[in-house]
Amino acid sequence: MKPLILVTNDDGITSLGIRTLVNIMKTIGDVIVVAPNSPQSGMGHAITIGEPLRLYETHIFEDVVEYECSGTPADCVKLAKNYVLQDRKPDLIVSGINHGSNSSISVLYSGTMSAAIEGAIEGIPAIGFSLCDFREDADFSHGIPFIKSITESAIKHGIPKGIALNVNIPAKSEEPLKGVKVCRQAHAKWQEKFDHRIDPNGRGYLWMAGKFVNFDTEKEDTDVWALDNNYISVVPCQYDLTGYKALKELENWNL
Amino acid sequence: MKPLILVTNDDGITSLGIRTLVNIMKTIGDVIVVAPNSPQSGMGHAITIGEPLRLYETHIFEDVVEYECSGTPADCVKLAKNYVLQDRKPDLIVSGINHGSNSSISVLYSGTMSAAIEGAIEGIPAIGFSLCDFREDADFSHGIPFIKSITESAIKHGIPKGIALNVNIPAKSEEPLKGVKVCRQAHAKWQEKFDHRIDPNGRGYLWMAGKFVNFDTEKEDTDVWALDNNYISVVPCQYDLTGYKALKELENWNL
Repeated sequence: MKPLILVTNDDGITSLGIRTLVNIMKTIGDVIVVAPNSPQSGMGHAITIGEPLRLYETHIFEDVVEYECSGTPADCVKLAKNYVLQDRKPDLIVSGINHGSNSSISVLYSGTMSAAIEGAIEGIPAIGFSLCDFREDADFSHGIPFIKSITESAIKHGIPKGIALNVNIPAKSEEPLKGVKVCRQAHAKWQEKFDHRIDPNGRGYLWMAGKFVNFDTEKEDTDVWALDNNYISVVPCQYDLTGYKALKELENWNL
Repeated sequence: MKPLILVTNDDGITSLGIRTLVNIMKTIGDVIVVAPNSPQSGMGHAITIGEPLRLYETHIFEDVVEYECSGTPADCVKLAKNYVLQDRKPDLIVSGINHGSNSSISVLYSGTMSAAIEGAIEGIPAIGFSLCDFREDADFSHGIPFIKSITESAIKHGIPKGIALNVNIPAKSEEPLKGVKVCRQAHAKWQEKFDHRIDPNGRGYLWMAGKFVNFDTEKEDTDVWALDNNYISVVPCQYDLTGYKALKELENWNL
């Protein structure tokens, strides 16, 4: 039996990235799509509490069972597993291909990766794929063979317990990709700047903008280094946030 | 100089939990509040991308500089640090007191804890406080002395680098609290069930509901065990999601 692959994303079901991912997954298994009906970038691990969800069948792809959902990427995974599929568990969950990087600290803000981590919580192998090009007509072609081989490896080996993979692909350039690097999450942050403007009614509003600040510039074992050097980065991400090394220090506080 | 304490939450600036937290923090330092103007439960680490933010000064508390914001808890921290305060960095960020538990896997869905983790990313000691009682008129009184002493300890010792504290307080009962336990995040998940209904216009909608499933029932070192046994739980949470133990296994895939 072919593996059952659940595809979702955070840019919405009509984006080019999910279309590309669906086409790759159709060469590997049976595909079911449950994806947001609108862009959900930056939604992190949000779920819909206190409001109802809408779920409608769509007809965007060929030979695929597909639904759009009014909720977040994490909602989509929960709905797919516990409502749409119920009895059959997906063999794999893939999320993306995101239009834009989800490397380093961006993993926390990423709806793409939260869908994958939701898969890990359910004990299902899960991978989030992102391209370091946020344009809506981004060129995903150079990443396709790697996405296929990483997915096939994950099906073959299984993914370590409690882990989802965060795969980022450099934007297409004239230089071919050098390969794939297993990395850690670079220590970095976004340095925000807020742009204050006045609306036509005379009331103030703010746009959040920011620049990426990497504190790990010299380190070659990070995802940011890999991407800067034209490698695909693969970071194993865990949902156990416990800082085990800090437990001892806190014990000494004698709370 | 008294420490500058930024207070935020995810239940919104008018909730009883943040009012309680503001009153505690006023006994410790100078307080500034930047909190959401509406409930943001379950928002996880969402940030507002592609939409502007509104920020208005409010006059809900006494002797406090305070703003309500249209964004998420993580937005509030970013706005407070980089727009409202700019030159003076808060000495501490506290988030809550949440109406409802954020123990175990719920930390991932928690706006309360995402605000605290955002503080850790900025290198600011940060603590999220939650009460295991989601009622809007929940009784926070038994937790007050502990919240004060944990906050004072954090100011005295500093919080380990890359860490925010996740503090959960049992709901008030006849039995007094037994004390504070430093714990790890229990291995658990929410098992969702979706309730399908028909709206007055004949279209279907779904309510997400779920029950908590704890896979760590026999373990005494978890936050869930502590709370079930009437202890306050303190879990150090890190924003580096890298599953370091999985790196080696992935290397063997020869991607």
